[in-house]
Amino acid sequence: MAKISPLAPASFPTIPPVAGVRFASGAAGIRYPGRVDLFYAEFAEGTSVAGVFTRSSMPSVPVDFCRTALTAGSGHARALVVNSGNANAFTGKAGIAAARATVQSAAKLAGTDINHVYVSSTGVIGEPPPAERITAALPTLKATLGNSDWEAAARAISTTDTFPKGSVRIAKIGGVPVTIAGICKGSGMIAPNMGTMLGYIFTDAKIPPAVLQNLLSRSTEKSFNSITVDSDASTSDTVLAFATGQAEHQWVAAAGDAHFRDFRKKFDEVLLDLAHQIIKDGEGASKFVSVTVTGAAGSGAAKKIALAIANSPLVKTAIAGEDANWGRIVMAVGKGGEKADRDKLAIVIGGVKVAADGEVVPGYDEAPVAAHMKGSDIVIEVDVGVGSGKATVWTCDLTHEYININGDYRS
Amino acid sequence: MAKISPLAPASFPTIPPVAGVRFASGAAGIRYPGRVDLFYAEFAEGTSVAGVFTRSSMPSVPVDFCRTALTAGSGHARALVVNSGNANAFTGKAGIAAARATVQSAAKLAGTDINHVYVSSTGVIGEPPPAERITAALPTLKATLGNSDWEAAARAISTTDTFPKGSVRIAKIGGVPVTIAGICKGSGMIAPNMGTMLGYIFTDAKIPPAVLQNLLSRSTEKSFNSITVDSDASTSDTVLAFATGQAEHQWVAAAGDAHFRDFRKKFDEVLLDLAHQIIKDGEGASKFVSVTVTGAAGSGAAKKIALAIANSPLVKTAIAGEDANWGRIVMAVGKGGEKADRDKLAIVIGGVKVAADGEVVPGYDEAPVAAHMKGSDIVIEVDVGVGSGKATVWTCDLTHEYININGDYRS
Repeated sequence: MAKISPLAPASFPTIPPVAGVRFASGAAGIRYPGRVDLFYAEFAEGTSVAGVFTRSSMPSVPVDFCRTALTAGSGHARALVVNSGNANAFTGKAGIAAARATVQSAAKLAGTDINHVYVSSTGVIGEPPPAERITAALPTLKATLGNSDWEAAARAISTTDTFPKGSVRIAKIGGVPVTIAGICKGSGMIAPNMGTMLGYIFTDAKIPPAVLQNLLSRSTEKSFNSITVDSDASTSDTVLAFATGQAEHQWVAAAGDAHFRDFRKKFDEVLLDLAHQIIKDGEGASKFVSVTVTGAAGSGAAKKIALAIANSPLVKTAIAGEDANWGRIVMAVGKGGEKADRDKLAIVIGGVKVAADGEVVPGYDEAPVAAHMKGSDIVIEVDVGVGSGKATVWTCDLTHEYININGDYRS
Repeated sequence: MAKISPLAPASFPTIPPVAGVRFASGAAGIRYPGRVDLFYAEFAEGTSVAGVFTRSSMPSVPVDFCRTALTAGSGHARALVVNSGNANAFTGKAGIAAARATVQSAAKLAGTDINHVYVSSTGVIGEPPPAERITAALPTLKATLGNSDWEAAARAISTTDTFPKGSVRIAKIGGVPVTIAGICKGSGMIAPNMGTMLGYIFTDAKIPPAVLQNLLSRSTEKSFNSITVDSDASTSDTVLAFATGQAEHQWVAAAGDAHFRDFRKKFDEVLLDLAHQIIKDGEGASKFVSVTVTGAAGSGAAKKIALAIANSPLVKTAIAGEDANWGRIVMAVGKGGEKADRDKLAIVIGGVKVAADGEVVPGYDEAPVAAHMKGSDIVIEVDVGVGSGKATVWTCDLTHEYININGDYRS
C-alpha cells in the first residue's frame, strides 16, 4: 500500500469470530504476482443475504451476477468470492464467462448451487479477469478456512486503499449478544484506477432476508450513500450483508421490532464507521469534513444540498487551503437546485455562526473559525430556512495529492 | 491580470461601432484604487433587451434588479452599468440600497426611468458595494462616451480573467448588414473569488424584445449553458442582449423568419465564441475539451450525460495527465443517471474508436490517440446506444494550477 493517509485510524480493530462465517485470503496472481488478492468465505446453511449496488447504468458483471442471485437464490447465501486486481467491468462476453466460471467453482467447493454464491471484483476495468487463476486458487483457500484474520481479509479486497478497513459492534437481541463485523475498501469513487467501494457485513443474528434487506438499504442510505470523495461513482459499488442465524435468540420478524432496536443502532454504527474510514482514506484527503443541512423542504432536499456543498470543487479546495470561505458555501447551496431562502440562510463553521439572515454576521469572531479550519475534522452546518428537512453527508478536501494520484499516466 | 492562459487567443478582435450604442470605462476605486472597474453604456431610444440569468436560488442583488426591469420596463433598455470588484451578493438590505442608488444615478444621467436601466456586479461577495464611488464616477464616464474601445470595456468587467474576451460577426437581414458585438468575462463559475460569468451582446438590428428573448434563451442554452469549468455555478451569472434597432432593415417579426436566419446563425457564433473563450481561460486550464454525446434518449439526456463526463474530476484529471482513460468515461456515463446501453456503448477519442459494443476495440491503434491527448484541443465522442438525442458541451482539464488558484488563503 502507498503512504498511509494522515487521517487513518491508529490500528485495525480487534474483530472476534462470527459464528457461521469461515473465510480465507490468498494470492491468486490476478494482476501482480504474490499480492494477496482473493477472499473466499463460506456461510452456514440458512444464512440470509441482502445487497445494495451501484446506481450506475454501466454496472460491472459481478454486480449483475449478485442482483440475479439475490432474486434466484431467495435471499440465502452459502459462499462469497471477492477478488482485487481486476474489476470485470466493461468486459463483454468474456467477462460474463469469467464470472460464471468463478461462481461455478465456488459453488462446487461450498456444496451449493450457483444462486447462493456471491461474487465481487475490483481493479482495472476493460480487461476480462483471469478466471483460471481464481479457480485454481480457490481450493487452497477452502483448505485454509478460518474465522479470525479479518485484517488479512480487508487487505485482500483492497486496491489503492492506504489502510485496511474494518469495524465491529456487539449488539443484543432479546438479551442474547450477537456480533456485527464489517470490512470494506475504497478511497475514491473510481473505476479504472481501482477505486470501487466494496463493503461486507457479517453477523450471527437470526434475521430473515427481507428484514435484512430493509435494514441494509436504510442504513446504507445514511452511510455509504452519504459519503463522497469526488462525486464520481464506480461501476462496481457493492454492499452485501450476511446473517448466519447461529445466535440463539428468537427470529426477528420485522425491522421495527422493539427487541431489534439495539441491533439496528449498532448495525448503523458499523456501516457509518466503515463509510467514514473510506473518506479518511479519500484520495489526497487531509481533512475529514461533515456537512449538515437543516431547514430544507425535506430530507431528500437536505441531502441534495449537502452533497452540492460536499462535491463543490471550490468548497473542497477552500477547505484544503484552510479558508473558512462561507461565500463558496452560499454558491453551492444556490446551485443545489433545491428550495432555499437566501434571506434566511445561516452558516455555522466549527460551531461559530458566520452568516445569518442572508448576510455575514457583522463582526463575527474569525479567530476560532480560523483555528477550526486548521484542524483535521471540519464541521459545516447550514440552515436553508424553508422547512424541517435534515441530512448529514461526509467528504474530504480536494488537494494537490488528488491531482497527483489521478492525473498521472495510466501505466 | 495574472499570467495569461496558454489557451488564450492571439489578440482581442477588431470590433466596429454598433449604431445606437455608446459606452465608456473608468476607474471608480471599487476594490483597488486605479483599476478600471466600471463600464457604462447608453442605448438609443427603442432599444430591445433580453436577459438570461443564473439558476441559483441565491441570486445576487443585481440579478434581482435585472429580472424586475425586464418585466417592468417591457423589454426596453436605455442604460447599462457593470462594475467589477464587488458582486453585491449576499449583502442584505445594504446591497439593495446600493444597487438602487446606482440605477437611480444612471437613470438620471441617461434621462430615462429606472426600469430601463440594467446593472451587473462581479467580485467579492458578502460586502455591500461602495455605491457612492460608483455614482461619483458615472458622470465622468457619461462625459467620455464613445463607440470603439471594446477591449477596455471587456477589461473593465473582468476579475480573475487572464485575457479580455470579445467577439464580433456581421450578419445580413434582408440584405442589410448588421453588427453583432459581444464581450464577456469569466474563468471559473466562482462566487467569492470573483469568477462570475457575465456576457453582453450588442446589435443594431431591429428585433422586438420577445424575439430577442427567444433568440437569446435558445442560443445561451447551446453556448454559455453548455460550458463547465468546475460544475460550480455563480450567484451572479448574467447574459444580456441589446438590439438598438438602428439598422435600416424591416423589423423581424418572429425568430423563425427566413430573412432572420443568417442573423440567428451569426448570433449563435458570437455566443459560442465567447463561451469558448471562457473555457480557454478556465482556472488552471491547459486543454480545451469538447464532449459530444449521441444516441441518447433525447437532447436533454444527451446534455446531462455530456456534462457528467465534462464535470467528472476523474475524467478531467486524466485529460490533464494526457491519459486516454476511456474507463473513466464509461464510469461518468454510468453515473449520469440517464438511459444508456452498456453493451452498445461506443467511445471515440481524437477520431479513433477505442470502445464499441460495450468492450474495448481489440488492438485499437493507441499511438494516434496518445498523440491527440498531447495536443491542446481534446475531442471526445460517446454514443450511448439508446436513441437519437445529441449534445455537445465544452470544458477544460483539472490541473494543479486549479488547486493553486482556489486553495490559497482568501486574503
